[in-house]
Amino acid sequence: MSGDTIDAEPGTVYLVGSGPGDPDLLTVKAKRLLEAADVVLHDKLPGPEIIETLPEDRREDVGKRAGGERTPQSEINERLVELAREGKSVVRLKGGDSFVFGRGGEEAEYLAAREVPFEVVPAVTSAIAAPAVAGIPVTHRDHASSVSFVTGHEDPTKEESAVDWDALAATGGTIVVLMGVGRLPDYTKALREAGMAPETPVALVERGTWPGQQVATGTLETIVDARDEAGISPPAVTVIGDVAGTRESVVDFLQNDYGAAEGGE
Amino acid sequence: MSGDTIDAEPGTVYLVGSGPGDPDLLTVKAKRLLEAADVVLHDKLPGPEIIETLPEDRREDVGKRAGGERTPQSEINERLVELAREGKSVVRLKGGDSFVFGRGGEEAEYLAAREVPFEVVPAVTSAIAAPAVAGIPVTHRDHASSVSFVTGHEDPTKEESAVDWDALAATGGTIVVLMGVGRLPDYTKALREAGMAPETPVALVERGTWPGQQVATGTLETIVDARDEAGISPPAVTVIGDVAGTRESVVDFLQNDYGAAEGGE
Repeated sequence: MSGDTIDAEPGTVYLVGSGPGDPDLLTVKAKRLLEAADVVLHDKLPGPEIIETLPEDRREDVGKRAGGERTPQSEINERLVELAREGKSVVRLKGGDSFVFGRGGEEAEYLAAREVPFEVVPAVTSAIAAPAVAGIPVTHRDHASSVSFVTGHEDPTKEESAVDWDALAATGGTIVVLMGVGRLPDYTKALREAGMAPETPVALVERGTWPGQQVATGTLETIVDARDEAGISPPAVTVIGDVAGTRESVVDFLQNDYGAAEGGE
Repeated sequence: MSGDTIDAEPGTVYLVGSGPGDPDLLTVKAKRLLEAADVVLHDKLPGPEIIETLPEDRREDVGKRAGGERTPQSEINERLVELAREGKSVVRLKGGDSFVFGRGGEEAEYLAAREVPFEVVPAVTSAIAAPAVAGIPVTHRDHASSVSFVTGHEDPTKEESAVDWDALAATGGTIVVLMGVGRLPDYTKALREAGMAPETPVALVERGTWPGQQVATGTLETIVDARDEAGISPPAVTVIGDVAGTRESVVDFLQNDYGAAEGGE
């Protein structure tokens, strides 16, 4: 489209989102930067199809350390500064979009505080794309005039839970939960207790846009059983709201082909 | 990345999002489909940089009709079916993501009901990208554990308003309002009345990722004046919440270059 060359500038950090996993859903800019950068810092979340095309001598896996535990964010921040100060062009690659539950904001602050120039390269977020390729629009004039994204990592029974499930239920809009397979029983219960109808449609999309994508559907009452029957495991996106019920009417003509039928491969 | 050829299949409709406007933020797949499709139906929202590269004999502007009024959605739906039945490969190109306030869900239902095969191609949404390139992450571990997207088209004083501003305020998360320049005074008032602090940071990003992008910042109390001083006009995205206040600490080292300084070009 644009014929511009994207130079990966020496001494600059690019905070790049990979999109949901399908390499064809990388942006044109992300793809060029991955080809041009001196070094790419990544974890496993961009998915095998994207990671495996990066030359080994130009990438560093900062997801897990040798012992198996997660690399602390502080260490990643320091490595970004170190590489930039060596004059490298550095891509920090995150799954989805760096600025949606991706710590891109923290990395930007750390870099700016140390006077390291950086650029943000927005991406397709899994929160929208995983439902979309399964035939579910997160908003719809007839069904949802707002959509909220939260993570399911937190324990909704905690007193100090940062996520207000009562308020989310009250919006009347679609709720998309990222990383919410494990705590599905907790927050579906919290939403029913907040007054959402038990028959509210819910869909789970595992590995959206990856080979072997799986979808399970149900309601706030039945989705935990549906998850177990389909064997849905992380990473997956949960879509809660009437939009999840529209999938049924379109799925027979939906040509997105990422692998699997309803409920399993 | 992937070496796959994307064929634009005859008789198939592709519901494609253009992303926020920068042609380099098209996905690899969207770009290929725009090059391969027999016909592209679009309006003005994908932005001039993307529209102008489409050959005139392969595109149809379905945004405005000769008289100046908006083409009814029903007419666009019918045209999609007509072209597909002629055996054409058809791209329906929307600004941002088709499934985020883009009527992609309605188009999918219409096509499926008429047995027309279709594919959804997710995109970078302006709701995330416009704030991001202005240095604002819509979520942040220290500031926002959820983000909600709404449109500002509606009158928040209407009894039957579909958007529950009280509930959105109660989530405690970031609120992003699309198409919300005109009604800014109404919903900032509604949010203050719902109990949000008047000093809550707010940012407006006009034409995010387009040449001549503009940013204005303020609070729930001051943003209307800031909008007027900066001359912010549609299309623009409004970001409400503490994340909007983080821009200040990073903007000096942010290299995204879409045109304009704070408050004007």
